[in-house]
Amino acid sequence: MNGKLYGVGLGPGDPELMTLKAARLIGAADVVAYPSLEGGASFARAIAAGVIPEGAEEIAISIPMSVKREPAQAAYDAGAADLAACLRAGKNVVVLCEGDPFFYGSFMYLFSRLSDEFDVEVVPGVTSVTACAAALRSPLSARNEVLTIIPGPMEETAMEQRIAAAQAVAVMKVGRHLPKIRRVLNRLGLMEHAGYVERATLPEQKAMPLAEAPETAPYFSMILVTKGEDPWL
Amino acid sequence: MNGKLYGVGLGPGDPELMTLKAARLIGAADVVAYPSLEGGASFARAIAAGVIPEGAEEIAISIPMSVKREPAQAAYDAGAADLAACLRAGKNVVVLCEGDPFFYGSFMYLFSRLSDEFDVEVVPGVTSVTACAAALRSPLSARNEVLTIIPGPMEETAMEQRIAAAQAVAVMKVGRHLPKIRRVLNRLGLMEHAGYVERATLPEQKAMPLAEAPETAPYFSMILVTKGEDPWL
Repeated sequence: MNGKLYGVGLGPGDPELMTLKAARLIGAADVVAYPSLEGGASFARAIAAGVIPEGAEEIAISIPMSVKREPAQAAYDAGAADLAACLRAGKNVVVLCEGDPFFYGSFMYLFSRLSDEFDVEVVPGVTSVTACAAALRSPLSARNEVLTIIPGPMEETAMEQRIAAAQAVAVMKVGRHLPKIRRVLNRLGLMEHAGYVERATLPEQKAMPLAEAPETAPYFSMILVTKGEDPWL
Repeated sequence: MNGKLYGVGLGPGDPELMTLKAARLIGAADVVAYPSLEGGASFARAIAAGVIPEGAEEIAISIPMSVKREPAQAAYDAGAADLAACLRAGKNVVVLCEGDPFFYGSFMYLFSRLSDEFDVEVVPGVTSVTACAAALRSPLSARNEVLTIIPGPMEETAMEQRIAAAQAVAVMKVGRHLPKIRRVLNRLGLMEHAGYVERATLPEQKAMPLAEAPETAPYFSMILVTKGEDPWL
């Protein structure tokens, strides 16, 4: 009988923000798999380290940094083949996913390759978006507000149009896009409404008004913009 | 010395989707507080029931169903006063929050009333949005997609404009707004891209294409629309 595949959200970084279900499934896994950037360290594995069982088999799926289509597809094809072999051998496989598996995650590429043949369960996790709001001590969205989540790499004019039309905004994966996002928010007169967070929920977390943020940002950083005033406050 | 106030996200409904931190904090609380709709049952309390300690004091904060400003403000004023009395007596107070405290939650109304005087920590939780994507087995947002989260009560024309301009969409709090949302998605030719979920992660969860969904929806229901095709798939 085939094993079962789990895509398990780990939350934003603090191991205590794993769900009870994530901790249980990882602790019972035969095989624990995780993405790693071109053979480097895996942030997902670091989050889950405390609950990975001693004897578990580990599979690191090396993801190329390239933004091109074919290398990424080939990497997911190879990773999916490795997991399929384990599943066919009757082993349960847990894929560790930073944040939530289906929220800007790479698990969807394994899911699309394996869910026809195997039983797959997706376990949601805490996203960095709400973790950053908690870090900034600033509500993300209230009652009837629209919340728009924008990836940092978006082209500048398109980003400006999106933010201008939005109510509450989260810009994810800020990194090297920080100067562009600052320009956009300055033009829109929104700098005073913007907060900056890097490495949310980790010991080295920084959270501050964007106006006070450093000149350079790591990949794991976010900007939240809230324009609204809720009448129930 | 004053006690500490925690706003703790409980996730979408399955008690196992509480975080380890939520379970720890609730289990150690002197006082556990939660919203209840006009004295009725509290969904938040039901999620956390298994970890609320035997001797904990419980405070139900009754929230009026009214959409008017003043009754809600008065309810939060009264609830905040109750919590403040506990905090001044040196007790630690955990407020139970469905989903995430700062994501369309009512905790922000207690936070705004208490965070100047007391030490407050917000603990993020799994939101219903990613839980619904997991239930539908459909990724919410990939790589450089914009995700727009829209509350169901939004006026029909405005909703249509928002969805037309969006890439991935989550419409929350569907409930009695289901017919309106169906009309909007039909006009935009998006019915085939829409999934419906009610009571995500609970035993009575339903998840299906919107075209097959029932005529009426409970308050805790959501529609997800994904238009994109990711090249890495």
